[in-house]
Amino acid sequence: MSLVVQKYGGSSVADAEGIKRVAKRIVEAKQNGHQVVVVVSAMGDTTDELIDLAGQVSPMPSGREFDMLLTAGERISMALLAMAIKNLGHEAQSFTGSQAGVITDSVHNKARIIDVTPGRIKTSVDEGNIAIVAGFQGVSQDKKDITTLGRGGSDTTAVALAAALDADVCEIYTDVDGVFTADPRVVKKARKIDWISFEDMLELASSGSKVLLHRCVEYARRYNIPIHVRSSFSGLQGTWVSNEPRGDRKVEQAIISGVAHDTSEAKITVVGVPDKPGEAAAIFRAIADAQVNIDMVVQNVSAATTGLTDISFTLPKTEGRKAVDALEKTRAQVGYESLRYDDQIAKISLVGAGMKTNPGVTATFFEALSDAGVNIELISTSEIRISVVTRAEDVNESVRAVHTAFGLDSDSDEAVVYGGTGR
Amino acid sequence: MSLVVQKYGGSSVADAEGIKRVAKRIVEAKQNGHQVVVVVSAMGDTTDELIDLAGQVSPMPSGREFDMLLTAGERISMALLAMAIKNLGHEAQSFTGSQAGVITDSVHNKARIIDVTPGRIKTSVDEGNIAIVAGFQGVSQDKKDITTLGRGGSDTTAVALAAALDADVCEIYTDVDGVFTADPRVVKKARKIDWISFEDMLELASSGSKVLLHRCVEYARRYNIPIHVRSSFSGLQGTWVSNEPRGDRKVEQAIISGVAHDTSEAKITVVGVPDKPGEAAAIFRAIADAQVNIDMVVQNVSAATTGLTDISFTLPKTEGRKAVDALEKTRAQVGYESLRYDDQIAKISLVGAGMKTNPGVTATFFEALSDAGVNIELISTSEIRISVVTRAEDVNESVRAVHTAFGLDSDSDEAVVYGGTGR
Repeated sequence: MSLVVQKYGGSSVADAEGIKRVAKRIVEAKQNGHQVVVVVSAMGDTTDELIDLAGQVSPMPSGREFDMLLTAGERISMALLAMAIKNLGHEAQSFTGSQAGVITDSVHNKARIIDVTPGRIKTSVDEGNIAIVAGFQGVSQDKKDITTLGRGGSDTTAVALAAALDADVCEIYTDVDGVFTADPRVVKKARKIDWISFEDMLELASSGSKVLLHRCVEYARRYNIPIHVRSSFSGLQGTWVSNEPRGDRKVEQAIISGVAHDTSEAKITVVGVPDKPGEAAAIFRAIADAQVNIDMVVQNVSAATTGLTDISFTLPKTEGRKAVDALEKTRAQVGYESLRYDDQIAKISLVGAGMKTNPGVTATFFEALSDAGVNIELISTSEIRISVVTRAEDVNESVRAVHTAFGLDSDSDEAVVYGGTGR
Repeated sequence: MSLVVQKYGGSSVADAEGIKRVAKRIVEAKQNGHQVVVVVSAMGDTTDELIDLAGQVSPMPSGREFDMLLTAGERISMALLAMAIKNLGHEAQSFTGSQAGVITDSVHNKARIIDVTPGRIKTSVDEGNIAIVAGFQGVSQDKKDITTLGRGGSDTTAVALAAALDADVCEIYTDVDGVFTADPRVVKKARKIDWISFEDMLELASSGSKVLLHRCVEYARRYNIPIHVRSSFSGLQGTWVSNEPRGDRKVEQAIISGVAHDTSEAKITVVGVPDKPGEAAAIFRAIADAQVNIDMVVQNVSAATTGLTDISFTLPKTEGRKAVDALEKTRAQVGYESLRYDDQIAKISLVGAGMKTNPGVTATFFEALSDAGVNIELISTSEIRISVVTRAEDVNESVRAVHTAFGLDSDSDEAVVYGGTGR
């Protein structure tokens, strides 16, 4: 008998109606002969309401207590979901993260799963129950305290459980039909992707695609668990994320998987850095010591006349203040001329393993932006991704132009063929 | 160092302001040199809201899932309370019932505590923390499932923890100043009781006094844990419930502790029962098999001419339908004439260990009711209690008349002295 892990997000279980709809879908999977384990998030706005309550009693809630508080959210949704399933005549049991054997480290609010010991879940499904597991939460290995996994944690719970239970598939139900070639709110002609490799999905996730988080895809790749991202509202097939297209389905790998964009970053430029060894290291040590995560890093060649260079990097806007403070403290040591902080930027990324072997992708990408009158401020590439930074106001136009240029529009013929050598 | 267990009910922590007020009070106890363990209920209406949600997804929620759902309530209040305490500069840690070692049987929704193993709580307070424990919940011994203790369960959690930790006192904080000689909403001149014995408190609790539930007092008596019932809003001394008045306080035991009333019961009279062995047994076996709890039972002497008698008993109104159904099924076997169901009754009870040695109490009680023009329908007594059933509409008048007759009014001189022999 095959075992399916299904995950339902907060928008799918936002109210009693949503819970009943999801219960029906779960029962269908059971009736189709699968063993079913369900991971569920907190209902709709529950988590935000709890965060608001915490803010009312303390400006700096402790991590341990914050986790204890937030985990009440899934407790509510999972119990209600189990009740709704039983009301349809099927047996269901809900389990907290701790009961489900989700063991984490002790870093409250963003704990990492270090082991999953799903003995109780296994027993429950073997006895014929549908097991409902609280997403987003676990229990710390050393102190046995309740922990939460941070943003997108329920997806990670689902994939980790699927791996531990050796599930056939991890289905991530959400409020969209799958992963698209671009954000459908920006590109009306964006197409749903039928299949995408773990690698391309990882790049999309780290380039601003919100459907799956990087951490969850990374986990699935490590344990080779196929993910099926699909809508909890429609019955449609969604997007499969796996190592290889499934044998029984004819899906060709596109050269380009999609275009992602991200407007949550800011850019800092350190102007007039002496071009000598150790300068960049001093700058990024200061940033690292301030616990700031950075994304793209670009250094231009230095001007021959001055021996000075500029170093630019992007980072989440929310960490801008912290980074600027850290850099200002290190100014005397580094001896740079000035800092520029700019949060009116957008990052546009083109992702596709096909670009490794299809020359001309970079040229087509830049031409599309140029034709749209968009200026490129920074460029950064990986083996299967090209990212540029543009003005924030150009983001929608840029994404549409690139999407069209690579033949991704839904009314377009198949993907463009490139000439030339290298990209 | 003395150890104090404090319990705060839902009305004390109804909102962020309430939680902050309670946090201050807890910190005061800590600053006074006590080790402090706090048991907290769910915030205000949280439990009702969760019950409402359950009703929206299932008309018959399963016990296991219902408990999982409801326990989210204390999880929220205890985490917020711990945050609020930490915000005042003191260390606090919250614990679920399971983490606190509250072990119960497996009867969901009204589990009984069968053991308390408070190792983590002990460690936490020994390390200098204030330990916050979720009331009302535990974990079942056999299946390790989450359970709830039913109505008033948080008080029981507090007393059970106090017993397991060998606490000096269990303080029950509530929205009234203590236990009164009668319900202050009915009797304006009701007096706060400074001290009351476990026995009298048990009789008051089972006679309709809502301040403490029977089960909690029973537990405290068994383990000899003094309870201090007091207001979380005022700083006043409340009511001490214990075996003996405390040595350092001069409190005399009154002859009469108080007058309780209860309008939640109905009366069933089985009319025309053949007065022969086995008839009453058949009736009450039928009631017991229907899982109905009964309270007072009265049988009159049979009329010599007919050989028939009437049997009356009281029971919660909510179980009336069930009881009547069960009795109708047994009619042919018992051969009674008819059933009368009456839910317009009130029970008035006079409680006090002093009535054992003070003759005339019963006479004074009945005279007071008679003078107030109140008709007595049933009478039932224990060693330290007399209860009567009257019309529901007479309840307030009855309670006031009895309260005055026994010198309990706050503007009265001390308690009346009785003459005569026996009661």
